[in-house]
Amino acid sequence: MHRLILLRHGQSVWNAEDRFTGWTDVGLTDRGIAETRQAAALLKEAGMDVDIAFTSVLSRAIETLHIVLRDMDRLWLPVHKHWRLNERHYGALQGLNKAETAERHGADQVFQWRRSWDVPPPPIEPDDRRSAVIDRRYDGIATSNLPRGESLKDTTARVVPYWTETISPALRLGSRVLVSAHGNSLRALVKHLDNVADQDIPLFEIPTSRPLVYELGADLMPLRRYFLGEGGTVEEITWPKPEPGAAA
Amino acid sequence: MHRLILLRHGQSVWNAEDRFTGWTDVGLTDRGIAETRQAAALLKEAGMDVDIAFTSVLSRAIETLHIVLRDMDRLWLPVHKHWRLNERHYGALQGLNKAETAERHGADQVFQWRRSWDVPPPPIEPDDRRSAVIDRRYDGIATSNLPRGESLKDTTARVVPYWTETISPALRLGSRVLVSAHGNSLRALVKHLDNVADQDIPLFEIPTSRPLVYELGADLMPLRRYFLGEGGTVEEITWPKPEPGAAA
Repeated sequence: MHRLILLRHGQSVWNAEDRFTGWTDVGLTDRGIAETRQAAALLKEAGMDVDIAFTSVLSRAIETLHIVLRDMDRLWLPVHKHWRLNERHYGALQGLNKAETAERHGADQVFQWRRSWDVPPPPIEPDDRRSAVIDRRYDGIATSNLPRGESLKDTTARVVPYWTETISPALRLGSRVLVSAHGNSLRALVKHLDNVADQDIPLFEIPTSRPLVYELGADLMPLRRYFLGEGGTVEEITWPKPEPGAAA
Repeated sequence: MHRLILLRHGQSVWNAEDRFTGWTDVGLTDRGIAETRQAAALLKEAGMDVDIAFTSVLSRAIETLHIVLRDMDRLWLPVHKHWRLNERHYGALQGLNKAETAERHGADQVFQWRRSWDVPPPPIEPDDRRSAVIDRRYDGIATSNLPRGESLKDTTARVVPYWTETISPALRLGSRVLVSAHGNSLRALVKHLDNVADQDIPLFEIPTSRPLVYELGADLMPLRRYFLGEGGTVEEITWPKPEPGAAA
């Protein structure tokens, strides 16, 4: 049995301000730090040890990971950071308040941008100060690979290669894996692991700092998946239409 | 010109209690956190940006690095952790109070253990609960490679291969390097870089959280080395007997 723990970062400053964040590099709030410490306590209580960790290149996911590793006394574990685990790029919406955007563009349009499978947001221009092209952390990545605004489908397309080439080999070698990432990059992994239908995955909510545990069998096929709760309790996840996994 | 920044971790709990620490995994004190944040402010003020970081597998050095990277807005940088950057292993002295040890064994003996080049401390037994052999972070390392008590000479012998094989190639590729480590693993690097005499290096004091900057030329020969101070001031380091560098 292989074990994979998915963890969405704690509440960020822009979660609290209800803004589209995407690749904007905002930090955690005090509440985000506190709920992350709670997540670490749950993992310790459940005896969910880890051997290797993966995260994005965005501070809120990295800080979340550092807090968890520190509280688990596992700061010394290897940590790999990669842009493919970043949040969905929210294009020209990044920085805008969600309610104000709904007033301007209509609630239906905003719902489409937020919860559709394949509708991308308006793209960002390369010379926009919000563009990844001018952010040093993305140096060395071909500009054509850097998103300017992604649908969840686009995000999934760039997350899955990292799963296939980097995370799943670590699991196959026997490592217990922790991934600290974002609402949509984790949706992408969940969709891939459980072969979730296109119309269902955008509606799957992963709360901040709530450990989502996958128990995987041969070929990394999911056997169980559950949110970890207090006192060792678990909340099993079932899909509207269970599909055979596609993890391998 | 290549740039290397050496940073000794902030004050640890056992620094504050005046105990032999070695490979014991103690955390930072509040003062240690505060002085580390000050180090990050000095680096930012001096415009000393970094591309890659190396640290030990001991929490106090990793925490120090995380604080600096966060305050420099560089959490996303690649970080490599390795036991070869650990503090000198203090053998059976680990955990003992330095003043009490001096009362028991005499000040001369303790001075030999602390400030000689090649006198090791009494070794730890493999089944001692303080032994690295029973610490999961050292799994996969041959027991014969795990120290049971090191002189500074021994520490230097296991630090230099990591410099040669891992850190110096990153510098040669043009990366600006930050190493967050320990009093003695950093002495080992300084000895190697500047070919410091055996009798001089144990007396070279690197204060906690004080950035030590090396400017290196072709073949990584040191051109300048200085502690970074406030307001962009520097304190150049000169050796009692300057020797040609041996960095290459």
